[in-house]
Amino acid sequence: MAWDFSTEPEFEEKLVWIREFVRDEVEPLEVLFPGCEFLPLDDERRAIVDPLKQQVRDHGLWAPHLGPELGGQGFGAVKLTLINEILGRSSWGPIVFGTQAPDTGNAEILARFGTQEQKDNYLEGLLSGEIFSCFSMTEPQGGSDPRVFTTRAVPADDGSGDWVVKGRKYFSSNASVASFFIVVAITDPDVPVHRGASTFLIPAGTPGLNIEATHHLVGSLPHEAGHSLIHYDNVRVPATAMLGEPGHGFEILQARLAGGRIHHAMRSIGVAQRALDMMAHRAKSRFTQGSQLADKQLVQAFIADSYAELLQFRLTVLHTAWLIDTAGEHAARKEIGVCKILASQVLKSIGMRAIQVHGAMGLTQQLPVANVLLGGVALGLADGPTEAHKVNLARMLLKGYEAEDPEWPSEFSEVRIEAAKAKYGDRVKNIPSVPATP
Amino acid sequence: MAWDFSTEPEFEEKLVWIREFVRDEVEPLEVLFPGCEFLPLDDERRAIVDPLKQQVRDHGLWAPHLGPELGGQGFGAVKLTLINEILGRSSWGPIVFGTQAPDTGNAEILARFGTQEQKDNYLEGLLSGEIFSCFSMTEPQGGSDPRVFTTRAVPADDGSGDWVVKGRKYFSSNASVASFFIVVAITDPDVPVHRGASTFLIPAGTPGLNIEATHHLVGSLPHEAGHSLIHYDNVRVPATAMLGEPGHGFEILQARLAGGRIHHAMRSIGVAQRALDMMAHRAKSRFTQGSQLADKQLVQAFIADSYAELLQFRLTVLHTAWLIDTAGEHAARKEIGVCKILASQVLKSIGMRAIQVHGAMGLTQQLPVANVLLGGVALGLADGPTEAHKVNLARMLLKGYEAEDPEWPSEFSEVRIEAAKAKYGDRVKNIPSVPATP
Amino acid sequence: MAWDFSTEPEFEEKLVWIREFVRDEVEPLEVLFPGCEFLPLDDERRAIVDPLKQQVRDHGLWAPHLGPELGGQGFGAVKLTLINEILGRSSWGPIVFGTQAPDTGNAEILARFGTQEQKDNYLEGLLSGEIFSCFSMTEPQGGSDPRVFTTRAVPADDGSGDWVVKGRKYFSSNASVASFFIVVAITDPDVPVHRGASTFLIPAGTPGLNIEATHHLVGSLPHEAGHSLIHYDNVRVPATAMLGEPGHGFEILQARLAGGRIHHAMRSIGVAQRALDMMAHRAKSRFTQGSQLADKQLVQAFIADSYAELLQFRLTVLHTAWLIDTAGEHAARKEIGVCKILASQVLKSIGMRAIQVHGAMGLTQQLPVANVLLGGVALGLADGPTEAHKVNLARMLLKGYEAEDPEWPSEFSEVRIEAAKAKYGDRVKNIPSVPATP
Amino acid sequence: MAWDFSTEPEFEEKLVWIREFVRDEVEPLEVLFPGCEFLPLDDERRAIVDPLKQQVRDHGLWAPHLGPELGGQGFGAVKLTLINEILGRSSWGPIVFGTQAPDTGNAEILARFGTQEQKDNYLEGLLSGEIFSCFSMTEPQGGSDPRVFTTRAVPADDGSGDWVVKGRKYFSSNASVASFFIVVAITDPDVPVHRGASTFLIPAGTPGLNIEATHHLVGSLPHEAGHSLIHYDNVRVPATAMLGEPGHGFEILQARLAGGRIHHAMRSIGVAQRALDMMAHRAKSRFTQGSQLADKQLVQAFIADSYAELLQFRLTVLHTAWLIDTAGEHAARKEIGVCKILASQVLKSIGMRAIQVHGAMGLTQQLPVANVLLGGVALGLADGPTEAHKVNLARMLLKGYEAEDPEWPSEFSEVRIEAAKAKYGDRVKNIPSVPATP
Repeated sequence: MAWDFSTEPEFEEKLVWIREFVRDEVEPLEVLFPGCEFLPLDDERRAIVDPLKQQVRDHGLWAPHLGPELGGQGFGAVKLTLINEILGRSSWGPIVFGTQAPDTGNAEILARFGTQEQKDNYLEGLLSGEIFSCFSMTEPQGGSDPRVFTTRAVPADDGSGDWVVKGRKYFSSNASVASFFIVVAITDPDVPVHRGASTFLIPAGTPGLNIEATHHLVGSLPHEAGHSLIHYDNVRVPATAMLGEPGHGFEILQARLAGGRIHHAMRSIGVAQRALDMMAHRAKSRFTQGSQLADKQLVQAFIADSYAELLQFRLTVLHTAWLIDTAGEHAARKEIGVCKILASQVLKSIGMRAIQVHGAMGLTQQLPVANVLLGGVALGLADGPTEAHKVNLARMLLKGYEAEDPEWPSEFSEVRIEAAKAKYGDRVKNIPSVPATP
Repeated sequence: MAWDFSTEPEFEEKLVWIREFVRDEVEPLEVLFPGCEFLPLDDERRAIVDPLKQQVRDHGLWAPHLGPELGGQGFGAVKLTLINEILGRSSWGPIVFGTQAPDTGNAEILARFGTQEQKDNYLEGLLSGEIFSCFSMTEPQGGSDPRVFTTRAVPADDGSGDWVVKGRKYFSSNASVASFFIVVAITDPDVPVHRGASTFLIPAGTPGLNIEATHHLVGSLPHEAGHSLIHYDNVRVPATAMLGEPGHGFEILQARLAGGRIHHAMRSIGVAQRALDMMAHRAKSRFTQGSQLADKQLVQAFIADSYAELLQFRLTVLHTAWLIDTAGEHAARKEIGVCKILASQVLKSIGMRAIQVHGAMGLTQQLPVANVLLGGVALGLADGPTEAHKVNLARMLLKGYEAEDPEWPSEFSEVRIEAAKAKYGDRVKNIPSVPATP
Repeated sequence: MAWDFSTEPEFEEKLVWIREFVRDEVEPLEVLFPGCEFLPLDDERRAIVDPLKQQVRDHGLWAPHLGPELGGQGFGAVKLTLINEILGRSSWGPIVFGTQAPDTGNAEILARFGTQEQKDNYLEGLLSGEIFSCFSMTEPQGGSDPRVFTTRAVPADDGSGDWVVKGRKYFSSNASVASFFIVVAITDPDVPVHRGASTFLIPAGTPGLNIEATHHLVGSLPHEAGHSLIHYDNVRVPATAMLGEPGHGFEILQARLAGGRIHHAMRSIGVAQRALDMMAHRAKSRFTQGSQLADKQLVQAFIADSYAELLQFRLTVLHTAWLIDTAGEHAARKEIGVCKILASQVLKSIGMRAIQVHGAMGLTQQLPVANVLLGGVALGLADGPTEAHKVNLARMLLKGYEAEDPEWPSEFSEVRIEAAKAKYGDRVKNIPSVPATP
Repeated sequence: MAWDFSTEPEFEEKLVWIREFVRDEVEPLEVLFPGCEFLPLDDERRAIVDPLKQQVRDHGLWAPHLGPELGGQGFGAVKLTLINEILGRSSWGPIVFGTQAPDTGNAEILARFGTQEQKDNYLEGLLSGEIFSCFSMTEPQGGSDPRVFTTRAVPADDGSGDWVVKGRKYFSSNASVASFFIVVAITDPDVPVHRGASTFLIPAGTPGLNIEATHHLVGSLPHEAGHSLIHYDNVRVPATAMLGEPGHGFEILQARLAGGRIHHAMRSIGVAQRALDMMAHRAKSRFTQGSQLADKQLVQAFIADSYAELLQFRLTVLHTAWLIDTAGEHAARKEIGVCKILASQVLKSIGMRAIQVHGAMGLTQQLPVANVLLGGVALGLADGPTEAHKVNLARMLLKGYEAEDPEWPSEFSEVRIEAAKAKYGDRVKNIPSVPATP
């Protein structure tokens, strides 16, 4: 009921445990099993990772983004932010706590729109982190703009009720390790896309689903799951493969994004904090050109600017989370847009400075700072480029303002003086009334 | 006891009243009596301004920064932020609500360290806004760095106990309208300045107190009070003119700044919000080059970027205020530094964009946007330049970090791999353990 | 015939003289007669300014932008840049050398399109700097976009051949001191504006030409000529008032801008250089916080960044000037666009830093640095806002590129590998061919 | 003898050939043999690369940076810039034209300071690109600051005249493929490092020269030569291993850098131009959100800003090269510093925009744009961090300015008014003299 920037003590205790656990148990996985986050566990990895997951479950912290209906705790967005900013420090954090995208969103779709059989096959595995999944929407010719999508799904011509999916999708992340694919296809090309698209669940291995190429981001390791170009070459699926109603694919996309829109932003706080910590440690440790780096103004400015950016960003994400919790996601659309814009910006600028403070070593694969910069660049493109978010944000904001006289703004002095005259003209001789200057 | 970004309904009602009052009654004063904020009221101005002040008093909102001991409400910093961000929209806001610098700070010093006679003479007038005062610290040769101050106060050689102040001060704001001056002078040059400076209250008109020049900031009007160069030419004052103990001038300066450190930042929220509002209105109103400004991406980016900067800044000021309220100002030093850095930055960038959206008109004296930019520049210099705040902030932050090995950071992969080996060496064959790439 | 960045020795001698003359004789006029550049000379000013102009004439340097047909030297754009970057240091430079806008452009129109009588009346006075003139184009409702102009000129209905001009113009600079006005009005509203606009020369004092208001830019002095809102209230002028042919107003505008497009940029070099010089001097002179400003890294970065920006900018203006000289202005359109964008940017960033180095004094009217910043802002709006220049520049650049496959760029590795296979497939076993990693 | 921004026609013909040759023959090597630039040629690569080198030789363009004494053409820095900006488009350009760092610099040292035997062994191979070499200077504990170097070379205690080198070097590039190493070691720790360091040539395989680790920059391929940590573990070398005189190691370093200081900058022009070309092509090819990317203002601003940055940068590098050619490298130190600062900055900002225009694909290994950004970051660290160059540049610049009065700058109006009074006081009644405002 009033401004408060603190965390309840009992929840703070949980955070204390998470902090220690992530630092002591999760971060080492980064160098132990680098780039293996999205690979199915082999025996060696399983022997180490499974007990960590169990500890998380034992503390009632598994899948903290989920509501109780899916086995989560219903923490809400604010508490999830406080958790995720810790998990974000480590690429393995989301895996060990069961919050990794895109599986989180896919699980929610599955739970809400899937048939019982689909749920039986995949939901538990997905929720427990045993299997992975792929969300296949972006197309090579048009990026993520659904209005130019060309992938079609047509009824099979044998009257079976089956659908035949044909087209190509690009940047389908984790396709190479996915157990199933959620695919967006046009089922009615004669209506606008938001009423003509449908969503299908297609199991891995379905004939015609061909991974034509898998691309890696710069900075990735070659065994990572990567991002695939998929040819859906007349992939035949039964009527039950459609998730939800025909033509309602968009609502499912929207629902999928619900709640998950600022997860990246939450984790980015942790990524940035870690880079700032590294910057500060290095500045204290390194002597060059006659003084510690910590004593050089240009390094001090790097650190101060990074702290200022991060402090602001963190408060904004928490504020947005609170809005989501109290007024719903729709009410927080502007703030969500801000979080998306900032997450990329903050990681890019702090990442760039962290590299600079570490010197050439900062650009090597030996330190996790070049990937902070690259992660920031990636966040400026994932889920729509920063430019699109700025345009959308501005449109939302501008809806709240009325047009005025096209010549003279209401704040124009002559306009205001007229108003002042109307209000005070009998009491003030000259408007404006200014004393003679000495 | 938990994150909350809302205002209590009963206080929100006060804010609603303030918002309407500032918009309807206070903002018109800007064009009615431009640049007269710090001029003693003549009859015409008094007839209009005094009733407004009375309304503020009637609503229990006069001098909301003050504690009850000085006639204020003891609202605390968070509520003061919520008030000040509204008052900040108008240059007359602080005058009508009794919160104008530097009189606020000077009143606090006076109340705390003044003799009864000094209080009798000045305190009520100052608190009621009837008189103005001058804080005279900065020196021409060294800016606001006390270590290079040369203004001296020496005991009169007649054994009277009087002091003789000699030296020059620069940028003594409002000197031309001040009823008294608070002057910082060195009384013991043989010790470090923080133990050798004292503070004096000198009435206007004291012989030897000569205003040699008064300079105006670009964008000011010629009748404004301005910033003066003062020659304290052997100004003789009685022993009671010293505020507090000899050599304790610094503590008084510190005390003076207490609480007031982020008042500028609070008001800057309102300044920036008004500029953003103007930008949005103009964008909706103006058609050029084939479309509304509101439909041009570069204008949309201006608006989105401004909103994002302002949202973050506002949350940061509120967070800082909350820290001050709950943990004290000392605990909030880092955040206060951030607020100081950001206030300047936010006004500069939003002001620059607001000008650009208004075209050449935005640079005229007819619109209050050029002064947003200039106000931002001024805030980057007042109370210490941004660069000094960055250096100080970094120093505070760096105190929280330990030096590491100068060669290899603790996040260096080889260092971490060694640790992983120690922890898991018997369970993982190769560390790092990566699968063969297909 | 080959890259050369030096000036011929004989011309360098002229520059040496100009440098000394501007420093010793012209710069003092700034403090002697501040803001009086565009005021007709009174006896006191004339007694000092006329002999300076005569010296310039005696050195063969009067109106160096003009060709011999108008009494100039035909120096060309490169040499004019070298002159103008010196003149730009002082607001009086253009006056003393006869190069002040907008009179320069207006004189060229007059010389080319005026009747003998018009020339007899105004040309000599304009070329000699005795009279001033106004270019009246921008309109209050649409800025400088001619497509939304509403000022009309219609034939008088008495068959006299006279024209009647009606409409309002805004930001008509120097209107308050102008001897005549060049006004753009729509004569044929039924065709596109570039074929329906005409240009008229209207003497000051013509009935119906009413200056409704004169606005000043922030930072101006009240006696400056300013920028006026003019109501052409059925201003009747004879047929000979039309400059050039009916409907050809645009060509005249284009011709007017010819050659003059980068004069602002040339002068901006000098403005920026002076600000950089001031910054460097102050850094060497000022001791604070334990060291000279010159020894603080953040100040050093200000100076280095300013130098780097200015060096680049200067070379770009000279390069553009050379293009104009050798290939004509049309061939230099892209570079001219760059100069316009940069001039504003360079002045803003160097001006901002120069203020910061000078502290609060840098914002006063006592130092010419706040006006460097404000001048940069103004240049981002004059002759079209920076945003419009960026859009235009990009369009010109993009004309030079062909569209490619919308899915895969020609630089996409798979596309290139296909090409490599076609070229080398029989000679390289695996393409790409990479050695096994050890 | 006068400003000229064109290239002689006969040399332009050479550039035309180089442009076509690089585009048609050299660029394909990037996808044919990715990351193999610094690997000794195997038969497959040799069969393709050697004939290309021969074509370069046949055109008299091999090793264009070298003077005739080393088999080059003595083109000078300006012409080398025009060549290198083309070669810079491709990572294979320097290899095919014999200009690859660090071998170029090492060859010059060898030619100048090597014994006949050393030259016989290595020079021809190095100049012909048959062998590679390593410059081993940077140390793990202190980066490239020689004042903290700890690698020592001591005379062998057997009176043989041999030296024993001990210490560790980091970021020794190409160590894994080098035929010899040029190592900087302290021979006299009792004098300042610029008189106590010496330089040694150590053949690969010398006992005690142990490569302890080889690190790769993010974005590299695993088979690239990388950057090594080398332990010189009591490496014994004969007296003849010392290059030049004892204690003169620094002069050799300086000589080594001579001429080569802006090679990276020259090539960066080509890197940036290629990224800009890609951006423009993509913008023309891609339709999303209702229009071509080329028609969106935010993309247009990317392209305009990139063009403006690149145009300026190119002119600055050419200007610097011309200074080196005409006045020598010492005279161009400031400009060289600017080139170093800008090369990093330009690649970072253009690279970032190029990624953004390409969307997620821009971050993959399939397109050469992420490496433009990373290359820019690397250039901000190689040969000293940008921050160090800014500090040095500022110091050089500040040497050209004298300190003034610490209180009032010479441009302060009161100071200038005094001067004006002295000059004109008998002729102007009031100084400043301003007319009354109407």
